[in-house]
Amino acid sequence: MAIDELIYRIRYLKNPSVAGLDPQLRFIPECVWDQLNVRGGARPDEGNGLEAAASAIRLFNFAIIDAVANIVPAVKLQIAMYERFGADGIAAYADTISYAKRRGAMVIADIKRGDIDSTAEAYADAHLGRTEVRGRNYAVFDADFATINPYLGEDAVEPFIKACRSYGKGVFILVKTSNPMSGQIQDLPVNGAPLYEYVAGLVSKWGKDLIRESGYSEVGAVVGATHTSQAARLREIMPHTFFLAPGYGFQGAKAADIVKGSVVNSSRGIIAAYQKDPYKRRFTHEQFALAAAAAAADMREDLSCLKI
Amino acid sequence: MAIDELIYRIRYLKNPSVAGLDPQLRFIPECVWDQLNVRGGARPDEGNGLEAAASAIRLFNFAIIDAVANIVPAVKLQIAMYERFGADGIAAYADTISYAKRRGAMVIADIKRGDIDSTAEAYADAHLGRTEVRGRNYAVFDADFATINPYLGEDAVEPFIKACRSYGKGVFILVKTSNPMSGQIQDLPVNGAPLYEYVAGLVSKWGKDLIRESGYSEVGAVVGATHTSQAARLREIMPHTFFLAPGYGFQGAKAADIVKGSVVNSSRGIIAAYQKDPYKRRFTHEQFALAAAAAAADMREDLSCLKI
Repeated sequence: MAIDELIYRIRYLKNPSVAGLDPQLRFIPECVWDQLNVRGGARPDEGNGLEAAASAIRLFNFAIIDAVANIVPAVKLQIAMYERFGADGIAAYADTISYAKRRGAMVIADIKRGDIDSTAEAYADAHLGRTEVRGRNYAVFDADFATINPYLGEDAVEPFIKACRSYGKGVFILVKTSNPMSGQIQDLPVNGAPLYEYVAGLVSKWGKDLIRESGYSEVGAVVGATHTSQAARLREIMPHTFFLAPGYGFQGAKAADIVKGSVVNSSRGIIAAYQKDPYKRRFTHEQFALAAAAAAADMREDLSCLKI
Repeated sequence: MAIDELIYRIRYLKNPSVAGLDPQLRFIPECVWDQLNVRGGARPDEGNGLEAAASAIRLFNFAIIDAVANIVPAVKLQIAMYERFGADGIAAYADTISYAKRRGAMVIADIKRGDIDSTAEAYADAHLGRTEVRGRNYAVFDADFATINPYLGEDAVEPFIKACRSYGKGVFILVKTSNPMSGQIQDLPVNGAPLYEYVAGLVSKWGKDLIRESGYSEVGAVVGATHTSQAARLREIMPHTFFLAPGYGFQGAKAADIVKGSVVNSSRGIIAAYQKDPYKRRFTHEQFALAAAAAAADMREDLSCLKI
C-alpha cells in the first residue's frame, strides 16, 4: 500500500516534499572524489571513469540520504542520471534505492517508461515487481513508485498497475509535465479541452480500483507545478489521484502553486544546495550533506502551508 | 550519417528488415545454460540468477548475431528485456551492442526514452553520444539509432537531435505504435485529424535540417505496421522520414502493409524461430541460431517486393 505509507510519512514528518537524487557530476564536490582514492576504489583518472563516477555517485547519494532521511518522506531517483554511466551507473542506481529504503525513505523511480505488452511487463517486473530466473524470483530495483509515460495507451500502463496490485506499489503517470515545451503535444485541443485533461480522465479511471484508506489511489499523476490553474482543474478531474509535482525551485514553482494532495520534488535545490546562496555562505564543500539537510528543512518550512 | 549507412546496407543485403534481439528467457534453449556451466560462468541455480541470466543472454545473442549478421542490415535491442535483469542485464545489453557492431550490423536501441532538458541530454549522451567524466569522454552504449517518445515535446527531443548532428546518429520518434490500444491517445482528434498525424508533422519538421544524401532524414519515425492506410497518409506528411515498422510476424503485419522507405522489425519470429513451425521441424534446439538465420532469410524473401 505504497500511497498510504507515503501519505502517512508525509504527515508524520510534516513534509510533502521529496528530495530528487539526480546526481550530475558537477554537483559532486572534490572531497567525494578524494574519499574514493583513499578507499581504494576506482580512480577517475585511470581505468574506467564510468565505474569511478558510479562510485562517487554512491558516496554522494549515501551521505545525502543519511542527512535527509529524517526530513523527507521519500527520495526520487531520475534514472537517466545513472543510465548515463552504463551498467556501472545502473548498479549505483540500484544500490542507492536499497540504501534509501534501509534508511527508512520511500523511493520514487523516475523512469518515465512506456512500451507495449511484454515490454511494459519487463519494465514493471524490473522496477516494481519481480524478475523470474529459472524458478527463482528477484526484486531487481524494488522501488515503491515508478513514473510512467501514457502515450502508448492502456495496455502499456496495465502491467505497471498489475504490479501495484501484486506488490503494494504505486505509479505516477505523466499528465502534464513542467518543461517549457510540454504544451506542444500535451495542450493540444481534444474535443474542446487540452489533451492532458483527457489523459487525466484516463488516469482517474485506471486508478479507481486501487483507491486506498487514505482516499488516494496507487495510481498517481505527474502534474507540472508551474501550471497553477491547470493543476486545480486536474484536481477536479482526478479527485482521488495523488500528484507528484516536479519543478520546485529550479523549475520555478512556488508553494502557492501546489494543490492539495501533492508531493513536491526538488532535486538540485537540495543536493546541490552547498553550491548556492544562502547555503554556500553557511557550508563548505565538505559539508554538502549538511547543506542538503538545511535546504530540505527550509523547503519543508516553505511548504508548511500545504494541506495533504 | 546513420540513415545513409542503414539504407546502403539495406540495398546491399537486399533486405529492409531488422532482427529484434529481445531475449525473453523462455526463448533461450537449455543448451545455452549448459554452455554457461561448462564455461564456469554464473550458474542459474546458485548465487545470483540475474548475473546468470545476463550471461545466458550474451551467449544466445552472440550466436544469433553470428548467424544473421550477413542477412540483416541491423539489429534492434529492446532495452526492457535487459533492464529486467538490473545492472547485469544492462551490461549484457552494452556487450550485445558492441558485438553486433563488430560483426558489421547496425544497432537500433529501442529505448523509447523521453524526458525534460538535462535528463534527455543524459539519455542522449548515454545511448548515442558521449558521457564525460572529469575530462574524459566515454561512448557508453554507442548505438546507431535510438527510439524516442515525443509526449514531452520538442525540448525532450532536441538533445537526441543534437546527438544525431554531433555523432552521425539517427532516431526514430514514436508516431503511431502497433499495440492494440495505441489509438487511445494517439488517435484522438486534434483539429479534425488524429493526434499521430500532428506528431508526424512535428517529426517531419524536426528532421528537415538532417536530410542526408539518401533523401531521408536522420530523424525517423516509428509507424506501427498494422495500420496500412494510416502508414500511407503518414508517408505523405513525412516524405523524407524513414520509418521503423515494428510488429511484423507476431504483431500481425504483412509485407503488403509496409510503405516505401521503411525498415521492418521482427523479434520473436527470428530469435525464437526454432520453437515455431516450420522451423521447429527442421532444426533442433541446439540449432536455434541456424533457425534464426533461416527465418531471417525467409523474411528477406517475403519482403523482396518492397521498395526502399
